[in-house]
Amino acid sequence: MAKRMTEHALIRSLRAVSVAATPPRGLVVGSGDDAAVFRASAAEDFVVTQDALVEGRHFARRWFTGRELGWRLAAVNLSDVAAMGARPKFALISLGVPASAQDAYLKGIQSGAARHLGKFGAVIVGGNITSTSGPLTCDMTLIGICKRGTAWPRRARAGDAIVVAGELGNASAGLAQLRGARAAAGKLVAAYKKPRPLLDVAGLLAGERSIHAAIDVSDGFSSDVIQLCESGRVGCNVEADALPVSKALSTFCGRRREDPMDRVLNGGEDYALILSVAAREADRVCDRLTSRLGISAVVAGRFRREKRVYQIVRNGRPRRLKASGWDHLRGR
Amino acid sequence: MAKRMTEHALIRSLRAVSVAATPPRGLVVGSGDDAAVFRASAAEDFVVTQDALVEGRHFARRWFTGRELGWRLAAVNLSDVAAMGARPKFALISLGVPASAQDAYLKGIQSGAARHLGKFGAVIVGGNITSTSGPLTCDMTLIGICKRGTAWPRRARAGDAIVVAGELGNASAGLAQLRGARAAAGKLVAAYKKPRPLLDVAGLLAGERSIHAAIDVSDGFSSDVIQLCESGRVGCNVEADALPVSKALSTFCGRRREDPMDRVLNGGEDYALILSVAAREADRVCDRLTSRLGISAVVAGRFRREKRVYQIVRNGRPRRLKASGWDHLRGR
Repeated sequence: MAKRMTEHALIRSLRAVSVAATPPRGLVVGSGDDAAVFRASAAEDFVVTQDALVEGRHFARRWFTGRELGWRLAAVNLSDVAAMGARPKFALISLGVPASAQDAYLKGIQSGAARHLGKFGAVIVGGNITSTSGPLTCDMTLIGICKRGTAWPRRARAGDAIVVAGELGNASAGLAQLRGARAAAGKLVAAYKKPRPLLDVAGLLAGERSIHAAIDVSDGFSSDVIQLCESGRVGCNVEADALPVSKALSTFCGRRREDPMDRVLNGGEDYALILSVAAREADRVCDRLTSRLGISAVVAGRFRREKRVYQIVRNGRPRRLKASGWDHLRGR
Repeated sequence: MAKRMTEHALIRSLRAVSVAATPPRGLVVGSGDDAAVFRASAAEDFVVTQDALVEGRHFARRWFTGRELGWRLAAVNLSDVAAMGARPKFALISLGVPASAQDAYLKGIQSGAARHLGKFGAVIVGGNITSTSGPLTCDMTLIGICKRGTAWPRRARAGDAIVVAGELGNASAGLAQLRGARAAAGKLVAAYKKPRPLLDVAGLLAGERSIHAAIDVSDGFSSDVIQLCESGRVGCNVEADALPVSKALSTFCGRRREDPMDRVLNGGEDYALILSVAAREADRVCDRLTSRLGISAVVAGRFRREKRVYQIVRNGRPRRLKASGWDHLRGR
């Protein structure tokens, strides 16, 4: 794969060739966010997102029953809708099916996805199916809805607090356990296999004027917080010591003599949310999330005015924060 | 692929496991049509469809430049929106990228799709990209819009005329030429490589009360007309001699001592439209399509009351019409 660009560079260049001279009536947000936004009516906007799971790239079939895989396919897309501050409504599933995939496994995917979507009031309305000589490929498109003009963009605001809702690093450790020789289970594996899309966070905070931007952590905190910065043309000061490290992660890393902060910062697939929150409201927002939803929510630094200045402070020492999360084209 | 169901059987069973107990507010048409339909506002409905092109299954990369492939990806999805009597608005493209695919080729796909969509006022609003160990996979989701309650369903009505807009069989012959040893070009190859989605037919007939149902011919006339029948719980009498055979197809088949009617009935990928039209209006509708749009439009039989009775008459002799089009899981 000699001359392959990074994923984000390629996406930027694909976006550049497909920008319309005159965007059609009704388009609110185009390419480049967690989801696109288009106007439904005087009262409501729709958001639409698409995310795929490719065997060998994002999962191994032996790790998942069909139902578990469908559940996860729904989760990664539900998380994108949560990152828009919206409610999920309609899903389409496109399957690329190798000869080795049993019909029962495919039905499992469909029913696992339907069940997870159903928990949040959403439903499968269509899709596509085709055979492939390649790996099992599951592609979902998910449409959500929110009050007109309230979808959370990806653009962080200078001066805002960096709020992290949910835990980081667990899914990455779970994936490492699954890749290990023996059967793996427990909290870390569950974090990878059954991530919880933070739609309750979106539900609780939707319409709050202090929330200026959001992204879900799919690639890894470092890469995703920098995406928030790039879209908002701001920089950031991350306080690493404020980021929570779960006990399970700490134990796992202790045994392997790893630094857990590496997984917290770069691990990916936790589907936590990073929010850009008006600084004076940030503590109140965190308290509310913790007391009402029982999830971890912390202020982990500030977005700053200086473009392209990404700084992380750990044990009082500042250094440059690098985007070291997952790249869907090149791996890490 | 020992125990694989047919595509339609599997789709039916996938649909069965994913039906929601209580469909969410705003859903008008769920799984099983060319597109799903959901309510946007008091005045408008959205339609949403998804269709994929998989290398080795639907195309070979050496047959297409990136731009041509993007054009075709847009065409097959635009055709689904045409079959709903709607106008296309917003597209998402999900690419599964093998190491062998050059960045320039991917950009070609994006710009070819953007250009074709743009011809009809639609725009790419997002998507996804991931690497794959398998073949190049291009998946598009396309959202269209129509006046509330006017989307064409797939349910044919007993007593209606079967109207076919556009030519049949050419794409199949073009594909056979491409598969042949030497470089191929001309009308037949163009029919396969650059199908014309009949959005002008949708535009001209949208809102006409005499149009009761429609489907686009992607798998093949025989399979697709039977789908219209199954959804509508009706049968059909097809008059084969009324179906046009293009001069190019006739010449091509003459040389190969083939019966062109086999390609007309079962060829697929022509993206013609089959319409269920109130019988007394059918001739007028055909005249209008031909005079206003310059395309072939014929009455090719009737939908009949008897469920599961599919008959075709050729040279005065009736026989049973079998669904012999393309199956996306098993081939033919």
